[in-house]
Amino acid sequence: MTIGIFGTGMVAQALAASLLARGNAVLIGTRDPGATLSRTEPGAFGNPPFSAWLKEHPGTILGSYAEVARGAEILINATSGAGSLPALESAGASNLDGKILIDISNPLDFSQGFPPSLTVCNTDSLGEQIQRAFPALHVVKTLNTLTAPLMVNPALLPSDHVIFLNGNDAEAKARVTTLLGEWFGWKSSNVIDMGDITTARGTEMLLPLWVRLFGTFGTPMFNFNIVRG
Amino acid sequence: MTIGIFGTGMVAQALAASLLARGNAVLIGTRDPGATLSRTEPGAFGNPPFSAWLKEHPGTILGSYAEVARGAEILINATSGAGSLPALESAGASNLDGKILIDISNPLDFSQGFPPSLTVCNTDSLGEQIQRAFPALHVVKTLNTLTAPLMVNPALLPSDHVIFLNGNDAEAKARVTTLLGEWFGWKSSNVIDMGDITTARGTEMLLPLWVRLFGTFGTPMFNFNIVRG
Repeated sequence: MTIGIFGTGMVAQALAASLLARGNAVLIGTRDPGATLSRTEPGAFGNPPFSAWLKEHPGTILGSYAEVARGAEILINATSGAGSLPALESAGASNLDGKILIDISNPLDFSQGFPPSLTVCNTDSLGEQIQRAFPALHVVKTLNTLTAPLMVNPALLPSDHVIFLNGNDAEAKARVTTLLGEWFGWKSSNVIDMGDITTARGTEMLLPLWVRLFGTFGTPMFNFNIVRG
Repeated sequence: MTIGIFGTGMVAQALAASLLARGNAVLIGTRDPGATLSRTEPGAFGNPPFSAWLKEHPGTILGSYAEVARGAEILINATSGAGSLPALESAGASNLDGKILIDISNPLDFSQGFPPSLTVCNTDSLGEQIQRAFPALHVVKTLNTLTAPLMVNPALLPSDHVIFLNGNDAEAKARVTTLLGEWFGWKSSNVIDMGDITTARGTEMLLPLWVRLFGTFGTPMFNFNIVRG
């Protein structure tokens, strides 16, 4: 299938590489494709510039957000928190309406350094902001609570661990659960449907704990599991 | 040893019963002991009034916050979020200074109904507010991320699950880790020291997720585990 990914950073690259390897067509959306391709400095975490990544993944098509939204059957938002609403506005509601958006973004605010705070939380969330701005888009928030290598390969950890789903549309959540299994090997029993998009508050607010655990462990290769009685 | 618990609700009762059963002396602090004893209506969650609980736990001594703070070797804050700072102010800094306070409270705001939001989060936390207000108190936040029956009996779940420690004083955190093992059977490997008291933001911000998982599962008998690579 043809999958559109918004964003060109490490998370977008990890998802794209995994989806390409499974035989999907991948479109990657960015604000200004020419500027993205001409950038030569490394990414925020020392990763190579996007043009270098693209050379190693020749099946990928880079386009504007609008081009990608038009061409893809399903969309993934892997932009930064601050970049999410502008990216979707640039894509245009008419190109988004009726589609599923898997929203992986987190509203992290690094303006005061590390650890980041959140730009929105508690009584609202980025997931809700996106859903309110694009009412006919089927927003399914998921995968935002673990590091990219584990998103695309949960079997890297030695035992079961979970991800959460937040979204208003039951059919869209069921479809995403199936895709997460087909694409990355997520067992449906490890995908917890929390309820409507307001439950995105809880999963986005997990990030401050995640960030400090990353600091404590010195590695992002961990995830949460839920133990039940 | 003599343990002082601030609060008379379900969490305080569960802790007190468990500590009494293990041969400790338990002092329970409240704003107005006479008013607490004369209350006949059930608690917020349908639990019996405190006087009924007290009759079944005759070793317990009820007193004012100041009396309990003076008499106890170690203190536990099991008041509501809104009640925490007033309780400690009523106890008085001179009765608190140099002692360890195990802080179990969460800044839950039920004023808009269920699910609750938080009264403080993101760039501050209740744990930090308490530590700032009482600089000579050794605040160790822990046990605030699971239901009371699991706090005092982690073996009720079938496999390992974790709690977090947040606090500025390494010696106090080590002492609390030992006590959690002796009192309730917490393995030290399941007690994760997150760092200084600012890390309480992360554990308090876990509550919105916990509350919605409670709704999803229909039971509070679950907890988080961390799976590492």
